[in-house]
Amino acid sequence: MAVYTEVSDTDLEAFLAEYDIGEADALKGVAEGVENSNYLLTTSKGQYFLTLYEKRVDPKDLPFFLGLMDHLSARGINCPQPIHGRDGSAVRTLAGKPAAITTFLHGLSPRRINVGHCGPVGEALAGLHLAGKDFALKRPNALSVAGWRPLFEGSRHHIDKALDSELAAEIDFFEANWPSDLPSGVIHADLFNDNVFFLHDKLSGLIDFYFACNDLLAYDVAICLNAWCFEVDNAFNATKARNLLQGYDRVRKLSDAERKALPLLARGSALRFLLTRLYDWVHTPPNALVKRKDPQEYLAKLRFHRSTNSLADYGL
Amino acid sequence: MAVYTEVSDTDLEAFLAEYDIGEADALKGVAEGVENSNYLLTTSKGQYFLTLYEKRVDPKDLPFFLGLMDHLSARGINCPQPIHGRDGSAVRTLAGKPAAITTFLHGLSPRRINVGHCGPVGEALAGLHLAGKDFALKRPNALSVAGWRPLFEGSRHHIDKALDSELAAEIDFFEANWPSDLPSGVIHADLFNDNVFFLHDKLSGLIDFYFACNDLLAYDVAICLNAWCFEVDNAFNATKARNLLQGYDRVRKLSDAERKALPLLARGSALRFLLTRLYDWVHTPPNALVKRKDPQEYLAKLRFHRSTNSLADYGL
Repeated sequence: MAVYTEVSDTDLEAFLAEYDIGEADALKGVAEGVENSNYLLTTSKGQYFLTLYEKRVDPKDLPFFLGLMDHLSARGINCPQPIHGRDGSAVRTLAGKPAAITTFLHGLSPRRINVGHCGPVGEALAGLHLAGKDFALKRPNALSVAGWRPLFEGSRHHIDKALDSELAAEIDFFEANWPSDLPSGVIHADLFNDNVFFLHDKLSGLIDFYFACNDLLAYDVAICLNAWCFEVDNAFNATKARNLLQGYDRVRKLSDAERKALPLLARGSALRFLLTRLYDWVHTPPNALVKRKDPQEYLAKLRFHRSTNSLADYGL
Repeated sequence: MAVYTEVSDTDLEAFLAEYDIGEADALKGVAEGVENSNYLLTTSKGQYFLTLYEKRVDPKDLPFFLGLMDHLSARGINCPQPIHGRDGSAVRTLAGKPAAITTFLHGLSPRRINVGHCGPVGEALAGLHLAGKDFALKRPNALSVAGWRPLFEGSRHHIDKALDSELAAEIDFFEANWPSDLPSGVIHADLFNDNVFFLHDKLSGLIDFYFACNDLLAYDVAICLNAWCFEVDNAFNATKARNLLQGYDRVRKLSDAERKALPLLARGSALRFLLTRLYDWVHTPPNALVKRKDPQEYLAKLRFHRSTNSLADYGL
């Protein structure tokens, strides 16, 4: 749930004068994303999406994010495509914030994930990896292994002793054992079900590229295993995972080394989401506008992955 | 800012099967209104507005609200028009809540009110009063004089002694002096700038009929005097008021008795909004999802109206 910055009709009019998409017919703040202020903008030419970047997005990353959406759109990936102003720029200031307009993507995020969703998600992820191959800009993953210890230090005074030891041991382990010799490239890094649209049972688009970065491609697959292949009771669903991996392989085949690394990468991904949720949990007042996500879910996933040795233990 | 109830894609699909407006292409929770959960719904046939009624709307009032929007739309008032399902009904259950779909209205609410807005608002209000004349259903105004004392009792332990005496005296005064012999009919009762859309400098529609009720027509004009004719520093702007009243008169001429009653009705309207804001202020935790509105603004307006004797004191 968002909309932190209000946009006046007069500010909007001046802003839109820099574009070639007609005049504003309607502007509705939408409760989507927790990082930015998002508006659904209707003009005489159609529907668009307007985003004002709030403090959690570093303005110097915007050329990467918007350039990537341009790059992927040009390669046939169905994602929001930035609208460029008459001066060629896709970012300008609105209500004192950096702001951009993109195309409006049709589709609905699935609330209850079923096995049928997972194959298309695997395919789309692999498609994104291939399309991102020749993207010129680079952005390191600030939430990879090197970022985990500072997150942990920022929340550890709020957790009990047993969990503290468990997480400290995990971080020690990953700092010593994180793979570096696997294929890397542009990853989405946050491909949860809210960021995937389906329309009439077909995957219709991917959104929210504001965690995208350069990292191991198989790590993105591991994030999806966590995001798409567990039931609400945190039980692993091997059929969903099989569909996801088969879908991925149809478009870009995972190497043997990547498959072998998946349990470790999935465990690392579980730790990453556990740490950011824990950090947000202890730093967000319970009544704030932002909905806090329960860290417990990712602790269960972390423990599950730690209990496995190979993909065979997943029933794969 | 709203969206209290989440709607799943599968629930939405079943819900839409009862209508003839195509399949869902997109559903975005919108941050509009503080009473209900609102969604912008895009289907293969166009844009619609989906509202789930939360606890502050009494389901037994829905036939009045939706029937009124039907009635006004049929008489050429540009307001959301309820979409009826195949069974003829405009209300059914979605995600456990009463829910309705209406047409989507184009336009933007003015953030900074200028004198040019006020004439069209007066005209539109009078148009609504005329069009509502033969509406068959009735709904008493729960927030008129009889409702003020209970609201006051529910907040008075949070206010200081001087304000307590001032408000108690106001309520005594209005209980003794509220007019009953003025023309009455259907009023909007909440025609603030968020509820009026403009498109290319023309008034394009009125929304949010969830306070509509039967009451004195001139009381609705008085509510608009408070909502549209004060500057942000609470100074009264006679030019705005003149435009508003002239606009109203062009469509439905206020009688001499109504004009004479306006200062008293405006003072009453200021008390009504002061009391509801005060009540919400003391009963809403500061960090809640709902934005609290400062009661102070309406205390200043109340005192202004109490200092006047006739419309001449307003520069009118």
